[in-house]
Amino acid sequence: MGFLRFFFLFSLFSFAFSHESLNSHVLRRPLIIQYPENIIENQFKESVDELQLQCNSWRFAVETNNLSPWKAIPPECAGYVKDYMMGRAYRIDLETVSKEAGDYAKSVKLSEDGNDVWVFDIDETLLSNLPYYSEHGYGLEIFDSVEFDKWVGKAMAPPIESSLKLYEEVLKLGFKVFLLTGRSEIQRGVTVENLINAGFQDWDKLILRASEDHGKLATMYKSEKRNEMVEEGYRILGNSGDQWSDLLGSSTSIRSFKLPNPMYYIP
Amino acid sequence: MGFLRFFFLFSLFSFAFSHESLNSHVLRRPLIIQYPENIIENQFKESVDELQLQCNSWRFAVETNNLSPWKAIPPECAGYVKDYMMGRAYRIDLETVSKEAGDYAKSVKLSEDGNDVWVFDIDETLLSNLPYYSEHGYGLEIFDSVEFDKWVGKAMAPPIESSLKLYEEVLKLGFKVFLLTGRSEIQRGVTVENLINAGFQDWDKLILRASEDHGKLATMYKSEKRNEMVEEGYRILGNSGDQWSDLLGSSTSIRSFKLPNPMYYIP
Repeated sequence: MGFLRFFFLFSLFSFAFSHESLNSHVLRRPLIIQYPENIIENQFKESVDELQLQCNSWRFAVETNNLSPWKAIPPECAGYVKDYMMGRAYRIDLETVSKEAGDYAKSVKLSEDGNDVWVFDIDETLLSNLPYYSEHGYGLEIFDSVEFDKWVGKAMAPPIESSLKLYEEVLKLGFKVFLLTGRSEIQRGVTVENLINAGFQDWDKLILRASEDHGKLATMYKSEKRNEMVEEGYRILGNSGDQWSDLLGSSTSIRSFKLPNPMYYIP
Repeated sequence: MGFLRFFFLFSLFSFAFSHESLNSHVLRRPLIIQYPENIIENQFKESVDELQLQCNSWRFAVETNNLSPWKAIPPECAGYVKDYMMGRAYRIDLETVSKEAGDYAKSVKLSEDGNDVWVFDIDETLLSNLPYYSEHGYGLEIFDSVEFDKWVGKAMAPPIESSLKLYEEVLKLGFKVFLLTGRSEIQRGVTVENLINAGFQDWDKLILRASEDHGKLATMYKSEKRNEMVEEGYRILGNSGDQWSDLLGSSTSIRSFKLPNPMYYIP
């Protein structure tokens, strides 16, 4: 390609100089405008930019809950999602959410009865499964519960650092912390082990799916559990989750905080 | 700066060639790595990239409703918001939302009683006030209701094309279309005029704030109006709005569609 480029350029120059005395205007234009490699490069850059815009727009639709339930990321956005998750953008987005949540937590005057609650989801909220998803196409592969449960069984998921900071802040401020996860009751042991390994401690409740909760949509299951909290006299002042099904439904929190997650969707 | 750069480069070359016979390895490195203007350019590029990431993250927080009520965009993101609103990204985001909404609308089986409703907000949902905001810093200036009402009075806001397309689609499918806006009842005349000028017609209701609605938060006012629709026997299947206060609260729609708007926030 380099040789062809040089050859083409050389031919153009020869052509340009051989006609210089006739009409220089005619010659200047093709030299600048019709150099084909530049056009190809520009077209390539434009299509990369266009894909970036399209995938950004898809992520906007994910994060605003505009999409109907989806099972895998669009194949053309595979590189985009990988770059987002592994680069600075995901971390900055996480930090921005935690900072907002922390500012709100500090601004709230808690009552003295100890019934003010902050609810946290676990996966992609407190613990990061990025080591697992990096081996499974960052959401490009259809979710494989058997493989994922093997990963969960290792209790090795690292903390999301900005969430750990928020977690410690709200505990210190006097909130009760309830962990509400879609994980199964059978996984209680490994979940506790993983949370402690990752630096989380002193939660007040850890609520997992009991046998009667299996098959329920997450929005329903989590709403029911929040309803129970409210019936027990708790006030849910804050709720952090990476899925809208963590945050919407009934007995919703006074403020909800949506963490980024373009890798998967839980209805 | 250009002169200094040339001078520095010239000095390096002189230095390089004068010592060429001694140790070429020593000389090649400073020529490539320590050229200080490159460092400054890189640092500038890095800080531009960092600002882009921070403003992107702020926009993510806006669109996911993670922020507490805000009155103006962050000054450091003024250029970012302008570029977003005037460039392809805003249009693509609008088109993505409308496409999703249209796909959903087509997938719904409507009942025969004619009580299936799609609710549309007006400003930044059907009509674009970008001509106004482009004269007022794209959200950098604190909202000036007197100036804005003058603009509304002109009835000149253009349609958001992708929303007009959706609007016509849902009408054709047989939905009743209810327009629910935070504009005042006094502005009914100019609002109807503007909607028609922009190509909107055949809506079933146009609901504006009556005198008793002034001072209510938008979430409350819009929830009350949706409650009334439900009490009258309507089923709200779709709702399009650029503010979360268009979409959240009570009698929420089966599916809600959040249009992008990083310029202002209505609680």
